[in-house]
This record gives sequence, structure tokens and C-alpha cells, in this order.
Amino acid sequence: MNVFIVHAHPEPKSFSSALCSTASDHLRASGHEVRVSDLYAIGFNPIASAADFENRKDPNYLVYALEQRHANDTDSLSLDIRNELAKLLWCDVLILNFPVFWFSTPAILKGWIDRVLVSGLVYGGKRFYDRGGLIGKRVLITTTIGGQEHMLSPGGIHGPLNDMFKPLLQGTLAYTGMTVLPPFVAWHVPYVSHAARESYLHKYVKTLDGLDALEPLTFPKLSDFDAQLRPLHA
Amino acid sequence: MNVFIVHAHPEPKSFSSALCSTASDHLRASGHEVRVSDLYAIGFNPIASAADFENRKDPNYLVYALEQRHANDTDSLSLDIRNELAKLLWCDVLILNFPVFWFSTPAILKGWIDRVLVSGLVYGGKRFYDRGGLIGKRVLITTTIGGQEHMLSPGGIHGPLNDMFKPLLQGTLAYTGMTVLPPFVAWHVPYVSHAARESYLHKYVKTLDGLDALEPLTFPKLSDFDAQLRPLHA
Repeated sequence: MNVFIVHAHPEPKSFSSALCSTASDHLRASGHEVRVSDLYAIGFNPIASAADFENRKDPNYLVYALEQRHANDTDSLSLDIRNELAKLLWCDVLILNFPVFWFSTPAILKGWIDRVLVSGLVYGGKRFYDRGGLIGKRVLITTTIGGQEHMLSPGGIHGPLNDMFKPLLQGTLAYTGMTVLPPFVAWHVPYVSHAARESYLHKYVKTLDGLDALEPLTFPKLSDFDAQLRPLHA
Repeated sequence: MNVFIVHAHPEPKSFSSALCSTASDHLRASGHEVRVSDLYAIGFNPIASAADFENRKDPNYLVYALEQRHANDTDSLSLDIRNELAKLLWCDVLILNFPVFWFSTPAILKGWIDRVLVSGLVYGGKRFYDRGGLIGKRVLITTTIGGQEHMLSPGGIHGPLNDMFKPLLQGTLAYTGMTVLPPFVAWHVPYVSHAARESYLHKYVKTLDGLDALEPLTFPKLSDFDAQLRPLHA
């Protein structure tokens, strides 16, 4: 497999960083190819702006998604975006590795999503969900969180984790057509013992070895909706 | 009222920007005080990092939330964060004004959330939801989106908008203790007529004039959970 890990933690000695390096070391040792974008280490720019386009379709009025399409068509995306996009298109498996900040990704990773998941290539028009541009790739979220599992379960104070992650799991990753695997979550990380962290790393290696056996999450299919995207079976 | 608008759109001539200036002009003309942080205009840094703290509790290992608490206690948050925090604490009503990027905020606004909603002040320990640090303030999301309303409604292809916005509405804004008003949404913005946009601006002014009449969204209360945050009435 070609595996692309996008990692976003400000502390290189963090447990999130340990998950990233455990994955890359183990997958390489298992014969896979691995590329890593450590967003903090490379100083990734998360701000979607006019500077992302080397030439503009409309230099007077920025519609970001339209400029993405134009720049993709004319090969004029900024170099940092092209670098990330090349790794994304190369991979069979994408891993987003991050600590939960406000029940979602750190801004630096949100900016990677905003800038690298380019309209016209990754999605566009009616090409989303099961017709998205990244069909055939699998994606795994690997995350660390301060809370405990019962707080993000059905009936828990925050509700199920996958509901909190809906804009990421469904609105972003499934939207691009990728097959979304169930998230790997290390709970309560700031408070657990060294042994518990070792146990998470061990479980993560097992998860990576067993990706093929994981049941993907399910999401809407365009075939259940009409041309105006109204439900066919309402 | 003291109103603080946090605005995040890369195009100053955008409809999102028109919503921002319509609100600030109208609210000022109505006798309210208004402050605006135009995140793109001020070049706001969205990346949570060690540089956010003028002195560190632990210079060798960054736990961002712990350093926030320490920096808040010792008045050593970076100047840009202190500037935003002063406006946040000053306001009675916070408005987050942004275009939907991947069913959530643009990264520059996610970074404002990551960096400005400081642990130890805005939340911390058991101070969240109805015991959060920002109790008494109201918050309104004002957003523009390419999709149509039926696509983000019950039974719609993406499901209800407020489910997509759960990490923002519940996991962030309600978590801080703020009273969360129903979002103001301008649908299908890139595709609608000038008259439809005028109509949205008119409706927005009416919404701002009628904030007191809006029924806030409802969220979990800590009193329904025990000391381990397990439900009392499961």
C-alpha cells in the first residue's frame, strides 16, 4: 500500500506524534510505502487565499472554489498545494493524525483540507459522496482526546464521537468519495499511564495490520436522490 | 448591546463581507457598540503553537491547554490573543460571520477558536456547558453556503445543518456557556440573484433587530450527569 499520513500536533514529543511515527515505522517495516506531511514541522500555511493561485480566472473577485477549478485546469495551484495534492493522489490509504481541538481538527489541518481538497479534482458539480473524485482510496482518522469514551458515546454528555466528527467524516472525507474507516481514538490521553499509552500503540499497530478487516462507515449515495438532490424515497 | 463580530472571508467584496458590514452599520445606527475582527484583513495567525505563550509552565513539553491556563494566570498570552480575548470578554453578543468551508469554519476562524477560547478562563475542569466561562453572552452564527436548504434539512442528502455544525454549535459555543442562537444562513449564495441577496440582507437586519425574540438552541446540562459525567437518568 501507499500510505500518506498528514500529522498535525505542535509538540514533537506528544503521544499524537508517537502514533504518527509508530504508524510510519511499522508500515514501512511491513513493506508499504509511507509519506508523511508533518504540518507543524513544514510550517504549512492553513489560510485559503488568493495567493494560492498563480494565475486567476477573475483577479477582481475571489470565489475560492472557482479559482481552485481554474488553477487545477491550468496547473497553476501554488507549489505547497501541488506538493500535498501529489501525495494525496499517490496514496491508497490516507491517515489524518491529530489531537482533537474543540471536537475537530487543529486549524492547521483544517487549512490543509480547505486548500488541498481542490474543487474540480477532488469533488465538483455532482461528483461527491459515492461519485467523489477520490473513490478507491481509504481514509483513517487517528486521534487523541482528553475526554473519556463514555462522554462521547450514545447517551453521553457530548453524544457519539462520530456525530461530533460528522463534518469531517461525512461532510469532508466521505464527500470526496473516499472509503472512511472507523476512527482510531486514544481516549483521556493527558491523564493515562505510560502503560496505557503503550497499550494504545500496540492496539494501533494491530489496527493498521487489520485495515482490510475494518467495516467502513456508511454514508449517503447519490443514487438515492434526484437531480435536485431531493430524496427519491421520502 | 456590545457586539463583537468575528469575520472570516478572503474576498472583501463577498456577500459574507456584505453581511458583516450590514450588521456593523445597522447595529451602530441602532445605538449599539460594535467591534469587528476581520481575520483576513488583520492577517490573524490561526496556528496554535508554543509561540502563543510569553513564558512557559513547561518549556520542554507543550500541552497547549495547560499552557493556556498558565499564561492566563500569569498574563502572558501573546498580544494578538489578548486583543481578541478583550473583545470577547467585552461583548454581550458574539457574531461569527463566515462562509461554510467543508461544512465548518474556514481554518483562519478555526484558529481563532483554538487560540482565543482559552482554557482556564473560557472553560476548564467542570466549567463547561451551563457552567462555562462565557455564561450570559449570546452567540450568533451568520453564514453563507453554496448548497440549498433542502440538502441540509432532515432527510436531505447531508442531513440537518445543525447536525453538521454540532462541533461548532455544541462542542464549542455551547461548551463555553454562551447562549447559542439559531444560525442565520444565506443559502445557495454563489447562484442566487442580486435581488435574492438584497432580500437576505433585509432578513438579516430583521434578525438582528429581533435577537431577543429568538429561541436559543438547547444543549446538555451538567446537572443531568454525575461527577464522572455519566448520565444520572440513563
